[in-house]
Amino acid sequence: MAEMKWWGWGLEGAEFTHADMPGLAPFIERVLGLDVRRVTAPPPSFASLCIPDSMLPAALRSELEQTLGPDHVSMDELDRVVHGRGKSLRDLIRQRRGDLPRVPDVVVRPANEEQVAAVLRSAVTQDAVVIPFGGGSSISGSLEPAPAQTRPVISVDLSRLDAVLEVDRLSGLARVQAGVLGPALEDQLRGHGYTLGHVPDSFTHSTLGGWIATRSSGMQSDRYGDIADLTKGVRVVTPSGTLVVRPIPAMSAGPSVREMILGSEGRLGIITEATMQVRRLPEQRTILGYLFPCFADGLAAMQEIAHSECSVSVTRVSDAAETRFSFAMRQAPTLLDRVQSAALQLYLRRRLGWDVDQMCLSFIGYEGSRRHVAAQRHAVGQIVKRRGGLCIGSGPGALYDQKKFDTPYIRDFLLDRGGAGDVSETAMPWSRLWPVYEAVTSAARGAFAVLGVTGYVMCHLSHSYHVGACLYFTFAFRSGAGEDMLVQYDVVKSAIQQSFVDNGATLSHHHAVGTEHARWLEEDISGPGVAMLRALFGGTDPDGRLNPGKIV
Amino acid sequence: MAEMKWWGWGLEGAEFTHADMPGLAPFIERVLGLDVRRVTAPPPSFASLCIPDSMLPAALRSELEQTLGPDHVSMDELDRVVHGRGKSLRDLIRQRRGDLPRVPDVVVRPANEEQVAAVLRSAVTQDAVVIPFGGGSSISGSLEPAPAQTRPVISVDLSRLDAVLEVDRLSGLARVQAGVLGPALEDQLRGHGYTLGHVPDSFTHSTLGGWIATRSSGMQSDRYGDIADLTKGVRVVTPSGTLVVRPIPAMSAGPSVREMILGSEGRLGIITEATMQVRRLPEQRTILGYLFPCFADGLAAMQEIAHSECSVSVTRVSDAAETRFSFAMRQAPTLLDRVQSAALQLYLRRRLGWDVDQMCLSFIGYEGSRRHVAAQRHAVGQIVKRRGGLCIGSGPGALYDQKKFDTPYIRDFLLDRGGAGDVSETAMPWSRLWPVYEAVTSAARGAFAVLGVTGYVMCHLSHSYHVGACLYFTFAFRSGAGEDMLVQYDVVKSAIQQSFVDNGATLSHHHAVGTEHARWLEEDISGPGVAMLRALFGGTDPDGRLNPGKIV
Repeated sequence: MAEMKWWGWGLEGAEFTHADMPGLAPFIERVLGLDVRRVTAPPPSFASLCIPDSMLPAALRSELEQTLGPDHVSMDELDRVVHGRGKSLRDLIRQRRGDLPRVPDVVVRPANEEQVAAVLRSAVTQDAVVIPFGGGSSISGSLEPAPAQTRPVISVDLSRLDAVLEVDRLSGLARVQAGVLGPALEDQLRGHGYTLGHVPDSFTHSTLGGWIATRSSGMQSDRYGDIADLTKGVRVVTPSGTLVVRPIPAMSAGPSVREMILGSEGRLGIITEATMQVRRLPEQRTILGYLFPCFADGLAAMQEIAHSECSVSVTRVSDAAETRFSFAMRQAPTLLDRVQSAALQLYLRRRLGWDVDQMCLSFIGYEGSRRHVAAQRHAVGQIVKRRGGLCIGSGPGALYDQKKFDTPYIRDFLLDRGGAGDVSETAMPWSRLWPVYEAVTSAARGAFAVLGVTGYVMCHLSHSYHVGACLYFTFAFRSGAGEDMLVQYDVVKSAIQQSFVDNGATLSHHHAVGTEHARWLEEDISGPGVAMLRALFGGTDPDGRLNPGKIV
Repeated sequence: MAEMKWWGWGLEGAEFTHADMPGLAPFIERVLGLDVRRVTAPPPSFASLCIPDSMLPAALRSELEQTLGPDHVSMDELDRVVHGRGKSLRDLIRQRRGDLPRVPDVVVRPANEEQVAAVLRSAVTQDAVVIPFGGGSSISGSLEPAPAQTRPVISVDLSRLDAVLEVDRLSGLARVQAGVLGPALEDQLRGHGYTLGHVPDSFTHSTLGGWIATRSSGMQSDRYGDIADLTKGVRVVTPSGTLVVRPIPAMSAGPSVREMILGSEGRLGIITEATMQVRRLPEQRTILGYLFPCFADGLAAMQEIAHSECSVSVTRVSDAAETRFSFAMRQAPTLLDRVQSAALQLYLRRRLGWDVDQMCLSFIGYEGSRRHVAAQRHAVGQIVKRRGGLCIGSGPGALYDQKKFDTPYIRDFLLDRGGAGDVSETAMPWSRLWPVYEAVTSAARGAFAVLGVTGYVMCHLSHSYHVGACLYFTFAFRSGAGEDMLVQYDVVKSAIQQSFVDNGATLSHHHAVGTEHARWLEEDISGPGVAMLRALFGGTDPDGRLNPGKIV
């Protein structure tokens, strides 16, 4: 089991390169004033870090070693550092700075639910704190011990619980262990002819348990549903025994305990297993590219699709700024590409009268039988046409599908070069989409201006529902010499998040609360809502041993 | 605002009659040994009841009257009795017996959220208990004060909060007050060209707030979703202020507070308003009737539809016992009816080789554009055919659609004649459907045998999901002279409920917990699940003023 880099996304050796994207360096130079050809701020060596000693009491260590075997109780420094944080920009900046006031005292890797329960019992009797760890991809601060935590901190790495235990074909249900990573899960399900269909951007480095604990959502949620829809049953090791929510399609047995586990970020226990809704692998799967004259038209088309009888798997439309970024990421064009592109531009400008700077790129996905896919493509095509858009075929969609997991690497690429980049996403009713979009982009630009930095903000709609959608914002800026990038990040990120809750949108559609978004919780779910969460957490874990300080 | 009868379902004067159903009396005579032509146990007169005096302190009364105006603070005996219970068989038996140890001390009818909040403040400062009341249709004991309750009990009737406040057409959202009854809600939405599409059997006498507080589900849930899916935002008056869950399509802001209100039965506060997903009225709406050679084939067809690309609004299939009951409910046939029916029977027996005693009646509903409806009918038709079924046209479906709200009256009709009838429903994965069906029907028959009563149990599948379905059981028996019907009811009902949880099904799919199902909660959601509910309720309402004793 290879862990992600201690300083960035993905495995050691995997990184983003602009070598085959001739347009990217000039684009970034233009929008951020950053010369990406020069690495100015590479990550430091691990040896240069000052890592706090483990505070694990000998008695607890020996108990854990007895329970799990010594091979699965790690006091290794790299292990402890990797398990102490996720991959938010805040995390990455601090890791690179060697700002490590508190890291877990031990990383344990239980093999099964019984061992998880034994670890939790040890934590209770020996007054330790437990923080569950899936793939380490959190960008909301859910994995970090409180800096002032004086009790021993155990990071419980679920990676050995990685099996699909059973597929119930009649019910379309699979019983799956919580520590399985996205690719391993889909590989196992594919063997049965099934798919979960849950594909978040973090897919390669995130786990089922992590998805459930953060209320994750994937790019195909329009068809498959969010993780909250897909999770039908769940097993959670808690201080008062194992919670068993049986797989039931819908139930009327009081407030939903299942929905309390979803998004609980370790505050209620450790998720060991879930029973997931799965679907047969589709006969056909395709993602088509579309262009719209402007973002408003693209959004209107997505709303119309959501209220129509069409059934699609992916709805995505980028604003003009993100469209320009996407085009800048294209690989070196062949002569044919150049000719086609010039012809398209000419057609758009002359024949359709488009302002190509306002043009927006969109992807719409289709899955199912050939007949179903053909019917949906046709019906969506009519809506796109009515909104002034046009289809540009399956090439761009296939490319997007191939490259979709590369995005998180760009943060490290920018950091190496003195640039800061991160994301904030939200959801809201359709009627609030445009006001939120305008408020957020203007808040981000306002923050850049206040800081005096050259910045860029871009956005796409990433998930549609009958009543609204998710808007996903990416922002980047060049941090000047002598400036504290973390302070600057806080100004931009806060402006964006504040703008969400001020405009009827949520603090996060699928990235969770952790510590990063906790300050907006009360504005999002109101004081009595926060009081209910406190009652739930406090009553379940009165001594605050389960990932304390997260969410509330 | 007319209240339901104190002793039964519906408004005074409305009742079930078998006058136009020549087959029903012989059918009931045959299966229950009950002569329905003789009313042997009519409800007593209200005047004969012994109703406990109101224990409302004068100070609290005067405070409530100041808040609401004296017209909306009722100490009337009939009002208090009607508000003290719902309409379960247990409730109806006890009402008819005049078994009224504790009824609410006062019924208040606030006009708006501010008044609800003021009532709750008065309850807190004057140490009273509040029980919210919608339409009074509960069949799980959610409305009843504990018999030993020594504090004043205020029944908060929400019937004056009955308006659709706003329709957001772009988002497909309607902001609605919680006290609106089903028909008034749909009438108001229809004026905007929209529908909620939520049609439980109790529709005519249940409210939006009640649906939310009990996790209700309606007959069209296959298309529209359960109330848990439809409720996007909610406002709840709680002891610590008004909880505001804003309408967001999906969010990742910790455990779902919205899903804590759903099914909370007044334990967390009083629901005053909700923002609901609504859809444009469909161009076409039709329910077709089908026949299957046996229940197993009917269930298999429903499962196949759920896993197909078909989209339907209603899936319903009755077992053979319920099919025979449905046929016994038919109105007097014309000569043509007789001829057609004889021809059909001949065809089924001779040509298809069916055992018509095993035959099962099914309804499948379609909604949407004409083209969509036609395509779905065709696709479903293929599945039905593969499972040996055949379509019998739109006549029976239209009749079912017309008569669907009459069923709850039959309980009173039976009680008047010494018969007991009630329902229990559940949900489970598709793979558990047949085992649960067999276990439950055999448990009910076992209970009849133990009691030595002539009884009948029948079942239909009423809602389908990708991973499973709801099975809805109806049971009836003739209670002999000198027998305690309540004790007998307990034996049968308990046998059925126990069979649910023993076989991987939930204690209720859409009828809630209340006091009636509370004893199975731990077996359903496990001890730690119950502990989480206790933590939530206890932390939110430490003094137990909000509908205490319900759910846990």
